[in-house]
Amino acid sequence: MSLLIVGTVAFDAIETPFSKTDRIVGGAATYISWAASYFTKDINLVSVVGDDFPKDEIAALQKRGINTEGLQIISGQKSFFWSGKYHLDMNTRTTLSTELNVLAEFNPVLPEKYKTSEFLMLGNLTPQIQVKVIEQMKKKPRLIVLDTMNYWMDTQREALDKVLKMVDVLAINDEEARQLSQEFSLIKAARKILKLGPRYLVIKKGENGALLFHESDVFFAPAIPLEEVFDPTGAGDTFAGGFIGHVASSKDISFDSLKRGVVFGSAMASFCVEKFGIERLKNVSQDELDDRVREFIDLVQFDISLED
Amino acid sequence: MSLLIVGTVAFDAIETPFSKTDRIVGGAATYISWAASYFTKDINLVSVVGDDFPKDEIAALQKRGINTEGLQIISGQKSFFWSGKYHLDMNTRTTLSTELNVLAEFNPVLPEKYKTSEFLMLGNLTPQIQVKVIEQMKKKPRLIVLDTMNYWMDTQREALDKVLKMVDVLAINDEEARQLSQEFSLIKAARKILKLGPRYLVIKKGENGALLFHESDVFFAPAIPLEEVFDPTGAGDTFAGGFIGHVASSKDISFDSLKRGVVFGSAMASFCVEKFGIERLKNVSQDELDDRVREFIDLVQFDISLED
Repeated sequence: MSLLIVGTVAFDAIETPFSKTDRIVGGAATYISWAASYFTKDINLVSVVGDDFPKDEIAALQKRGINTEGLQIISGQKSFFWSGKYHLDMNTRTTLSTELNVLAEFNPVLPEKYKTSEFLMLGNLTPQIQVKVIEQMKKKPRLIVLDTMNYWMDTQREALDKVLKMVDVLAINDEEARQLSQEFSLIKAARKILKLGPRYLVIKKGENGALLFHESDVFFAPAIPLEEVFDPTGAGDTFAGGFIGHVASSKDISFDSLKRGVVFGSAMASFCVEKFGIERLKNVSQDELDDRVREFIDLVQFDISLED
Repeated sequence: MSLLIVGTVAFDAIETPFSKTDRIVGGAATYISWAASYFTKDINLVSVVGDDFPKDEIAALQKRGINTEGLQIISGQKSFFWSGKYHLDMNTRTTLSTELNVLAEFNPVLPEKYKTSEFLMLGNLTPQIQVKVIEQMKKKPRLIVLDTMNYWMDTQREALDKVLKMVDVLAINDEEARQLSQEFSLIKAARKILKLGPRYLVIKKGENGALLFHESDVFFAPAIPLEEVFDPTGAGDTFAGGFIGHVASSKDISFDSLKRGVVFGSAMASFCVEKFGIERLKNVSQDELDDRVREFIDLVQFDISLED
């Protein structure tokens, strides 16, 4: 099996009520790739950076088994840059600046060997770019997972509707689900969204966990309660990376397998928020991951027997 | 086993973005009693109402097996009245008016046979009244559960600290847990609160579920996702009623039993919000309750096996 990941590789500058960073490595595809690399080694990355992007960060990805042949490096240009400031609740944030740079002209070109990847994770990008990626695939991947955001719902709804019809799983947050469906109840929102194309819907609720919807079934996974959330940046992408990484490695696209994906995604996200950027994601041991999953199991375990 | 419930029996007037009521029956002890009555029949109620309180509502409680000998009816006075208005998110609300009426002079007097109740649920009241109830018990109940609110943390902290040392379980919402502990992280908050007296802490998070803390263990139960929340009033009290009702009926005060209590509490709360006031709580069948618990089990069920 092989997993194709498409999304931003970029720089972030982050401010929280307790600390701040200079320019550090970020981007959806970066978080997704690091998280997925704990589950599968056959990962193909498509993205774009400027020549300001550190070579050793690319080498670190390669060392994790990530093929970077599809990572375009544009000479004389700068990488995508985002900076934001978290509020005291650590759940809401204000964007301080967004510099598209290389992203403004991004044309994703899939290397030949990427075109038969069996799993495809499309990080948040314009719906047009997401369509372009899918259209380059030689055969339909076994599972396509899509992330998107409010901005495309407001400005590119037609293109978004088109790509929604081409994917299997939509993974968005609760606010985005409400906006996309124009429904406040997440149950009603899910029912509407599942009619737009995807067979599965993941609604990410940050510190309040995640929901997986499929037909009339629902699965809920809490976020593992943490002593401290140091930096929430990338938690949603890390969740998506753990999710698709597990599903791809299991080769099983059943509801039960996707439920396990949600649990592994939650576990990975709980590491992500412990440090700034991808710092923590670079150093998770198998024992730590197993322990976190055991913690998750303990957290929700109970024993009730009802008579049939 | 017998369960003593102390709290308000009152009138509410509720406005939601979608509907509103005139004066309807409410009060913490009303919700707790109705919810608990689905699990155990030996319930003793202590509260106070004016002679404006409908006799048939008292008769309905009695019919559910609730002993109302300890429900004082004060002639020529009015029952406690609260009115509030929910905002569009249905999670936050504004109090429009509070009329203490009979509650201003409430002196809880336990009938002799109540004094040996094995389980005690103290709904939100002044900490002084809560202490007075505990002090009238002839022997320490097997489990005392306490609810309280921000207002007493602000104005009666010393009395609150006193009652906290006398109880086994504190059941409050996330905002209250943060205020009581002065910690934002609920994990840190729980650690501090468990040092104030209670062996168990339940943190209710409304539509985001509930956490049960005991020593270094945590259990999380989601709220069952609903199509529609019609009226959230009393959901927290209904949760507490299902929780203590189950625990009392099982006679088991282990962590595992309290976890089951949280699940049954969540199931009862999910009925409560379907209609105004206690309307829905008056008519839950055993099959409906079992189905709701099965729905809960399905919601969190997954299967991961890790090597040891």
